Amino acid sequence: MGLKPNERIDELYSLGIKIIQNSKTFSFSLDAVLLAYFAQLKRSSKSLTVDLCAGNGAVGLFASHKTRGKIIGVEIQPKLADMAKRSVELNHLSSQIKVLPIDLKDVFKFIKPNSANVVLCNPPYFKTLPTTKVSGNPYLAIARSEIKTNLNQVISTISKLLNTRGTAFIVYRPNRLIEMLNTLQKNKLVPKAIQFAHPRLNQPSQLVLIKAVKCGKPGVKILPPIIVRNENNSGYSKFMHQIMFGSWNA
Amino acid sequence: MGLKPNERIDELYSLGIKIIQNSKTFSFSLDAVLLAYFAQLKRSSKSLTVDLCAGNGAVGLFASHKTRGKIIGVEIQPKLADMAKRSVELNHLSSQIKVLPIDLKDVFKFIKPNSANVVLCNPPYFKTLPTTKVSGNPYLAIARSEIKTNLNQVISTISKLLNTRGTAFIVYRPNRLIEMLNTLQKNKLVPKAIQFAHPRLNQPSQLVLIKAVKCGKPGVKILPPIIVRNENNSGYSKFMHQIMFGSWNA
Repeated sequence: MGLKPNERIDELYSLGIKIIQNSKTFSFSLDAVLLAYFAQLKRSSKSLTVDLCAGNGAVGLFASHKTRGKIIGVEIQPKLADMAKRSVELNHLSSQIKVLPIDLKDVFKFIKPNSANVVLCNPPYFKTLPTTKVSGNPYLAIARSEIKTNLNQVISTISKLLNTRGTAFIVYRPNRLIEMLNTLQKNKLVPKAIQFAHPRLNQPSQLVLIKAVKCGKPGVKILPPIIVRNENNSGYSKFMHQIMFGSWNA
Repeated sequence: MGLKPNERIDELYSLGIKIIQNSKTFSFSLDAVLLAYFAQLKRSSKSLTVDLCAGNGAVGLFASHKTRGKIIGVEIQPKLADMAKRSVELNHLSSQIKVLPIDLKDVFKFIKPNSANVVLCNPPYFKTLPTTKVSGNPYLAIARSEIKTNLNQVISTISKLLNTRGTAFIVYRPNRLIEMLNTLQKNKLVPKAIQFAHPRLNQPSQLVLIKAVKCGKPGVKILPPIIVRNENNSGYSKFMHQIMFGSWNA
């Protein structure tokens, strides 16, 4: 299986998962690693997990060892969906993970409503307002900004995909947390657990992980903070080092 | 000034503030210290700060050095309001801090709507449902549980007290965070900053501090986590030690 121009293969050593990255279009980042780590998948071989806004497929690939069931990645950008598909092959996971190169508007032509046990989602973070400068890289712009979709559309799609008591795991930016919580609730998704990641212990959070249950009971838990780097030097914290180079089951 | 039965005087050494505590009725706790530390008061001598659900007055007393303006404490329980009043005298702050022994339902008989620059609030945390066991201590029960008031009543009172762009600082329990955020928004209070306190770095949050601005612009910041105790022993963290024994201006 050949690489295309500007592509390289990165490995998440803790899991032995290899991902095709492309410096000119899209590379997975910490968001994908933390979302996959945070997510609790249904173990059963009959379960269905959907990775919405899948990008180059990193989240589904990193989470695949948590389930014996199927995983379907949904990615609107053909070039990224193609990278994801080739990464699945590279890891010999084609029998478990499928990638659909489709707009999430069309997802119910391929996946039945109320059929997913779990939805994983790393949605676009930024509002596309007339004043917003979107990234000069059009692939990254679509992945990061609300160009092809918007928050309510993403969340209502998640809600419609999930069966009752099905669970969504989402990574987002904390500055839009309130809007996210409002949108989840409007779509019958009840926030049950929230975890904030901080670049350092003494810095504001730059990333939030949210677990929400369809038609769940109210009551939320704020999990221990994730601290990415040590305060005194630029090295990864013990926790992050474990996630990147240690064992996830430790 | 004499103490009554079961009363003692505690001191917050970092500020040199003395508080009359009563082991049988009500003592301030970490919540009050952290709320006062978190709060940003308006410096001006013409400003008005209201301490709603003031208990024995700890929050207003601890925050008093942050403003040259007036502070009014509102406490429904006469016995606690009396402790607060005597603590104000004990610290020679009677010209700055007044204590109203009233129900918050009656607050607008004493304070004009839209007149407060800042409202501080440590509201009752627990819903009083038929199944809820309230504390055997009736003073603590009223302070902690929604017996005499409820969340929406507290928040709508805060909103009505504040002038436009006035700011509320609230301490609450994280498991009711979603309800708090919904109730704030329903009352035109826009969450601007949230800080979680964790007993230890590897434990879920037990306390949340919220800053909300009346008619503010959306967009929230998640501040660095407050870690109360060190992981390896039971001692206070460096941060907490500073708050309790160091200088707040350091």
